[in-house]
This record gives sequence, C-alpha cells and structure tokens, in this order.
Amino acid sequence: MEVTNRYITIRTHINHGEPNESHFELKTAAFGLSVELGSNDVIVKNLYESIDPYQINRMKSYSPSQKAINFAEGIALGEIDAYGVGRIAASGNPKFEKDDLVAGLITWGEYSMIKDGNMLNKLDPLGFPLTYHVGILGFSGLTAYGGFFEVCKPKKGEKVFVSAASGSVGNLVGQYAKLFGCYVVGCAGSKKKVELLKEQLGFDEAFNYKEEKDLKSTLKRGEMLEVAVSNMNTFGRVAVCGIISEYTDEKRAVPDMLDVVYKRITIRGFLAADYMNTHADFMSTTCDYLRTAKIKALEDITPGVESIPSAFIGLFHGDNVGKKIVKIANE
Amino acid sequence: MEVTNRYITIRTHINHGEPNESHFELKTAAFGLSVELGSNDVIVKNLYESIDPYQINRMKSYSPSQKAINFAEGIALGEIDAYGVGRIAASGNPKFEKDDLVAGLITWGEYSMIKDGNMLNKLDPLGFPLTYHVGILGFSGLTAYGGFFEVCKPKKGEKVFVSAASGSVGNLVGQYAKLFGCYVVGCAGSKKKVELLKEQLGFDEAFNYKEEKDLKSTLKRGEMLEVAVSNMNTFGRVAVCGIISEYTDEKRAVPDMLDVVYKRITIRGFLAADYMNTHADFMSTTCDYLRTAKIKALEDITPGVESIPSAFIGLFHGDNVGKKIVKIANE
Repeated sequence: MEVTNRYITIRTHINHGEPNESHFELKTAAFGLSVELGSNDVIVKNLYESIDPYQINRMKSYSPSQKAINFAEGIALGEIDAYGVGRIAASGNPKFEKDDLVAGLITWGEYSMIKDGNMLNKLDPLGFPLTYHVGILGFSGLTAYGGFFEVCKPKKGEKVFVSAASGSVGNLVGQYAKLFGCYVVGCAGSKKKVELLKEQLGFDEAFNYKEEKDLKSTLKRGEMLEVAVSNMNTFGRVAVCGIISEYTDEKRAVPDMLDVVYKRITIRGFLAADYMNTHADFMSTTCDYLRTAKIKALEDITPGVESIPSAFIGLFHGDNVGKKIVKIANE
Repeated sequence: MEVTNRYITIRTHINHGEPNESHFELKTAAFGLSVELGSNDVIVKNLYESIDPYQINRMKSYSPSQKAINFAEGIALGEIDAYGVGRIAASGNPKFEKDDLVAGLITWGEYSMIKDGNMLNKLDPLGFPLTYHVGILGFSGLTAYGGFFEVCKPKKGEKVFVSAASGSVGNLVGQYAKLFGCYVVGCAGSKKKVELLKEQLGFDEAFNYKEEKDLKSTLKRGEMLEVAVSNMNTFGRVAVCGIISEYTDEKRAVPDMLDVVYKRITIRGFLAADYMNTHADFMSTTCDYLRTAKIKALEDITPGVESIPSAFIGLFHGDNVGKKIVKIANE
C-alpha cells in the first residue's frame, strides 16, 4: 500500500543567524507502507514531534555537536530526524508489531522509514497523554531532572535561579525545585510568561528580563549567564543544558572567572543522555507528581506537519510557552 | 627591647592595570620586641614570605574577594599581610613560646605584631627547608593537590593540560599528574620555562604560548581558557584557582558554552582553603614524594624585605620560575 507522505527538508545549512522559512521546504512524495522482505526496518506513522532548539546546531555545515561527540550528528541536507512518538504502520523487525506505539528518532514528516528500527523503543503511555512522552516524560523532562538533581545536587532551602523558565526544560526545573523545597526564581521574556510562572507553576519569584530595570544594562541577550554568575552565592552550581542565544549569534556569554574562583562556582555542561541511569527514578517521580497533580505539563502544541518550520523558528523568538510539540496526526 | 622594622606599605589602591613600584613604599619604624602585659599577642621575626598574585585583588578599593566571601579581605592602605614563615620573638600567648617556628599570616616586613596570635600555627619543619613550608608544603602545594585530586578527580591515563605550568601551583599540578599516571602537557611563557618543564619536571609535552604558531592567533593573553576548553575531551574538568591575566586587565576569558554543553565540560572555581580536609593526605603524600626525590620543589627566592614589591610586580610579567618567595632574614 502506498500513501502520500508530506515531510520537511532542509534546503541550506544555517551557519549564521536565526532559522527562517526559506531554510525549509515542505515536500510531498509517494511512500510505501511496507518494508523490504527480510529487512529489520519499520515504518512509523508519526503522531507527535518534539521541537527542540539544539537541532539548529545539527543544521550547520560545521556542527558543534559533530565536532564534540557522536551524540547528535549533523543533518545532511534533506530529511530531518527528531524525537517523537508514533505508531508502527509496518514492521520487519521482531521487536515491533503493527500498531505498536513507539518513541524515539522519527522524521519531520507524516511517515518515517526507520532502518533496522534503530533508536526506537516501544512506548507504554502509562495512562498519560502521548504528548507527555514527547515532553515532560521525554528528554525535556529527563534534562530537567538530571540537570537539577544530578548536576546541581540541590539541598533543601537553597535558592534556585532558572533562565528560560517558561521553556520546555526550565519550567520543569522550577517545578522540581519547588517540590524539593528550594526557593525558586525564574526569568522569562514576557509579562504573560512571568505571570504563568508565579501563578500557575508556583515559582516564588519571576521577572521579565526584557523589562527588568535594574538589570537592563546587563541583561541583554546572551548575557544571562554573566548576570547569574555575578549574583550567585558561594559554592553555587550552574547546570548548562543549552545556550540558545549562542546557537544563532556569535556573541558569547562571559561569566566572570574571578567570581567563579572566589565563590567556588561550578559551571557544568550536560546532556540528558548522560543521565539515563536515573531514568527509572525520573519516571517514577514524575509520574507520581503527575498523578497527584503536583506538577504541570506545560505544552504548546501546533497541528500539522506543515507547521514544523514555524514551530522551530518560533523557538528562537521565544514564541513557545512550555514544551513545543507539533501534532502530525490523530492517534 | 626595640628594633628598627622595615616594612612595605601600599600607597594607593590598584584598581586598574598591573602593579608598579609607585604603588608601594618601604617604610622604617621603631618596633618594640615585647607584647603588652596580659595580651595574647605575639611578635614574629619574619623569615620567608609567600608572594602571590591573588593579593592584587585585595589591593583594589572594590575587592572581588570582599564581594564574594570572607576568606581574604581587602587590604586597608598601609601594611600588607601575607602568608609566610617566621620565628616567635615575643609571646603573650600560651600557644607560642619565644623561638617557636610559626607559619601563617604575617606582614610584608621584617617583624609582625600578630593580634592574639590569630591565623598563626606552630610549624614543625619535618626535616625540610623552611621555604618548602611557604610553597610546596604550603598553600601552593595544597592548591595543586586539592585542585588536581579533589576538583579534577583524575583517572590514570587521562590527559592533563596545565596553564602557567612553571608557576607555583602549575608545576606541582604537572608533577602530581605525572606521578599519578597521566599524560601531561604544560604551557609557559618562555623557552627556558618550557625546557624546564620537559627536562626537569617530567612533563610529556610543553609549549611556549607566546611562540606557538598554530595557536598564535588565539593564544593571546587571557584566552588560554578558551583554547583549553575548545581542545578538551568530553567530560573534561577545568579547575580554576586563579586567573592572573584578569586580575589586571578588563579582558575576560570567553570559553565556548556550546563546547561546555556538548563535551559536558565542568569548569570549577576553588580555593585551597576548601580542601583543608585533605591536608593530612596532602602532607603525607607530598613529604613522601620529597623524601624519595620523586617531586621537585621549584623555588624562586629573592633576598630582603625591600625586594618584595619587585618580586610581586614580577609575577604579572612571568618573571618567576616556580614559587616566588622573599627571604627576609637568616633562620
């Protein structure tokens, strides 16, 4: 059986500046809903796509992630792979049967052909909406959990500052920190986001960095890390899971190393994948919090494969509130 | 009994740029070699002074150390306190007797009056030259030991890069790292220092950052941290005990945070004082290495209290090779 697959491709590398519509193209092609005989491949009908800023780094001809590690390779011009949730439409792989729900690396499209079923796992929704498995129970959640508990190793009563606090990871860091017993301050880029943090997510304090008068001279784009470091307490920890402003701008954060020394600050980069050993803890803690309504899944969902480029581009303008997800098809 | 005490004072704060002779003054004053009846004070005849770059931060009117912590307060214009070794000339304090050797905070002078004997400890030389207790067995040694073993938590066979590798701390980091079983690369600012690292201290590799052609465009002053981070392996650790170029220059290191994230690099500031819990280990390990001639005490000693300003100023020009010490008097 054959269907028409609509999918997004990347036309040119995005080496400088922000992504825009001209970098992407919606294509249409016939797509066979069967796998080659004897292969281990699977066909996935994509349901939800995780839209993540780090992907911009993979769209550079010289990818920082390629340079550094094998974790997330650069994207060849053409199709784009991304984390998401889908349903098996056809399988030559003994691990998967038709109609199984799966989570893992799919493509920015309506259907994905996954060679050998690589980087896919069967998904038990555990009674939660599938979108949760793209965001709060997916890598955004694990990033927040690993970054807060494993990288920062918090103590109750400590003060926690969260930048991009209404973003996919930041809002969860703040919620975990409150539930753990910390005093939590978040910053975000609009009045609406600030209200959300304080009124719906329980942040103790929040401010709009674009309007904060005291910090106005220093709190320009890309300088958040500097201001955070200069205001930190001794033995403070900075967990860095990404630095969105520097993905598209040559301007770099310049934390004061004298502060780092005298205040014995630790700045540590990490990737959620490093904390797979905490995955079971992360899942049981977060599912409990969800079931008892102690934590909120903040989602920002746009429908249709054709909306992927604008969803992605919007990340760099702070358009999203919470986890940005594109819904590709009805479940 | 009264003597003439020669001592160094600071005339003006040093808020910008490098220290020079005009910032300091050699003064002479009558000095009583007895303590007030009923006081806990002690009089110390100073023998050796540790000359340390971080002191410049205490000479600013707005001290970064004051801002951050209570560890090392700013210096009021006038006398200057510094780590050193001396001998008790008079004591009203039951902890000390005349002629006891002591180590701790004395002054940049020939004699020190130490209120209540604060920040002084009796010193057992353990059969080593007294200068060792200012450098390799003092805070320089503890900084190297704590920074390498406690902050970096090395594994045998790992690659270690040491900047300012012929300095008081750097040369010891390199030696500890070699003895521990790491591959050690050091950089320093002259051909002579590079030779010393390779030929006398056992570094596997060393280079002169002022002449390195490949790195010339980036390895200007203050950019060592950037280059180190961009060349680090995944999960690398950067232990920062000081950042001498930034003590006297507004220019700041700008490590690439994308590298920090993707390579999961940790940058951690520390002070030797944080690792007092390792002091017993540090002393037994280092004394063993010294007794078996596995480690070398690299010292750069200048005689006379009047040489303190030039010894201090020279630190910022890389004049010293190893631990800079001023010898004040014969033992």
